Amino acid sequence: MLPDGSSAHPHNSGFLAVDSGGSGLRVAVGTYDGAPPAEGRSAEPVRTGERGIDPGHLLERVLPLARTLAADAGVERLTTAVIGAAGFATLGDALRAELPDALTGALGVRQVALAADAVTAYIGALGPRPGAVLAAGTGLIAIGTDLTAWRRADGWGHLLGDCGGGAWIGRAGLEAALRAYDGRTGGSVPLLERARERFGQPPELPGLIYPRPDRAALLASFAPDVAACAPHDPVATGILRAAARHMAESAAAACPASGMPEVACTGGLLNLADPLLTFLHEELTRQVPHARQTVAEGDPLHGCVRLAVALAAGEAVWPEDPYLLHVTGADNRAT
Amino acid sequence: MLPDGSSAHPHNSGFLAVDSGGSGLRVAVGTYDGAPPAEGRSAEPVRTGERGIDPGHLLERVLPLARTLAADAGVERLTTAVIGAAGFATLGDALRAELPDALTGALGVRQVALAADAVTAYIGALGPRPGAVLAAGTGLIAIGTDLTAWRRADGWGHLLGDCGGGAWIGRAGLEAALRAYDGRTGGSVPLLERARERFGQPPELPGLIYPRPDRAALLASFAPDVAACAPHDPVATGILRAAARHMAESAAAACPASGMPEVACTGGLLNLADPLLTFLHEELTRQVPHARQTVAEGDPLHGCVRLAVALAAGEAVWPEDPYLLHVTGADNRAT
Repeated sequence: MLPDGSSAHPHNSGFLAVDSGGSGLRVAVGTYDGAPPAEGRSAEPVRTGERGIDPGHLLERVLPLARTLAADAGVERLTTAVIGAAGFATLGDALRAELPDALTGALGVRQVALAADAVTAYIGALGPRPGAVLAAGTGLIAIGTDLTAWRRADGWGHLLGDCGGGAWIGRAGLEAALRAYDGRTGGSVPLLERARERFGQPPELPGLIYPRPDRAALLASFAPDVAACAPHDPVATGILRAAARHMAESAAAACPASGMPEVACTGGLLNLADPLLTFLHEELTRQVPHARQTVAEGDPLHGCVRLAVALAAGEAVWPEDPYLLHVTGADNRAT
Repeated sequence: MLPDGSSAHPHNSGFLAVDSGGSGLRVAVGTYDGAPPAEGRSAEPVRTGERGIDPGHLLERVLPLARTLAADAGVERLTTAVIGAAGFATLGDALRAELPDALTGALGVRQVALAADAVTAYIGALGPRPGAVLAAGTGLIAIGTDLTAWRRADGWGHLLGDCGGGAWIGRAGLEAALRAYDGRTGGSVPLLERARERFGQPPELPGLIYPRPDRAALLASFAPDVAACAPHDPVATGILRAAARHMAESAAAACPASGMPEVACTGGLLNLADPLLTFLHEELTRQVPHARQTVAEGDPLHGCVRLAVALAAGEAVWPEDPYLLHVTGADNRAT
């Protein structure tokens, strides 16, 4: 409420928030009064083609959901849209070129923000406070900000980096299984047994993994087995300890070097729980001693919602950047 | 010559030797009198389909070359054929089922041996003596024998193993380059400069590498840069030292544990020369102290030739194995 008792937004205006990732997209539509938004999802990931992430395909998936959810939430007019997308930093050219006008044309929105999923993860986890967020799922990326600029570390994918992420842990676990099978040093018999249960006999493994387009996800599917073996297997424990060390290395590189930053971790890898989280706590304490370790407040979709509400209120504090957080359209506070 | 002055083979009979690998195939046709064989090559690799390595496609590539080379070498009748093929151990079912009869039908050969490329590398390198051979190119595999059975270590491909091979070294070098770019620990500025020269700006790298079917070869193409940086960069030196340790781990697992085995290394990775070879010598001395380190006598095609000549003479000493060395047809010594 404004001091004169009127609302900054008509009660029937609202926002659209989209979190687009490798396993599909999640959409939220809500009003600016703090009521929980209506949420929906589409299981089909947005296509990536020669021009990068395909804006037409994204709109095809988003627009019907947005209209249905707006009706559910009693929103008559969408004024702000936030699209958080995996790959936006490197594959977002077509989105930047086409999405703002297309969303204005189709939905009447006045302000559009396009953001890398790491940025929406950050905003969902730490909101308007400085620090660093580790997004740890199949991959691993750290993003930090002092609220002046963003700083990224890792996120290079399963061949070039993503050190300590799910595919990294699963891959290391399978290597240890095959070392045991070969009689090489560094092998783990418990991991070999787990690999047999999950994938069959070791000679079948290359044929199962290399032809698959989702190789990284398949490697990551073995990470829970590494975590399950860790309590009684020193090789598995060593893999998790190294993963935690690498995760903290990325957090340290992304985190503001001074001030009172916070560090939080989000993503599916947290489900592995102990001992990974204990090791991560120890490594963050050692490598980023000046940062306060906190629990993420919300997920990337929550970050999109937060960003939409803050933009509509003219209260967005996060640094704009063409590859990480690209905002277009007038501040619609006076709508 | 036999004691009665006659030859074991008519002067116009000979052998066919084929080394089929990822970069095409090499073919040799020669006589049994020790004269250098005639050699040819086809740049197109043999296709791998749902049934594994495609015997029809292999024959298409081999038969015209075999006939041309036989004419060049003055060989009127091919009596023995040896086909060494990368992937034979796991993808050789169709070759085993069809190739012997097809080669007999098309060329009249009486004896056919199908072998994994690791086996032909072994025979080319060490001949009839016990020991272990490291085949180090883009990938890495060790194979050893006490002349009773074969023992393999690693060779699992660039995601699951091939530890210390070309793709392993190149991948580690690129990770170090990107660590420097991110400001993470473990980074190497010299490797970052090399990566920029070879691939452009770091943000371009994922888009260059992940869509390529020859990702492993592309990673391996950076291995010479790691070797070039090693004299003045401790990170690059550390990568080569770790590679040598892993190579020796595989040699140790494959090598006979007793007796007087020899250990040799073959493959393109030897071109990296020092300091890799110095480290490898040190690691082999440490991990396989009972083995004599020797220089490989010949390459895998030479191994195919040796195997063909030995089979024709009834003097093949290497253990037969359906997945590693599969011999069919009568001993044709009396031809």
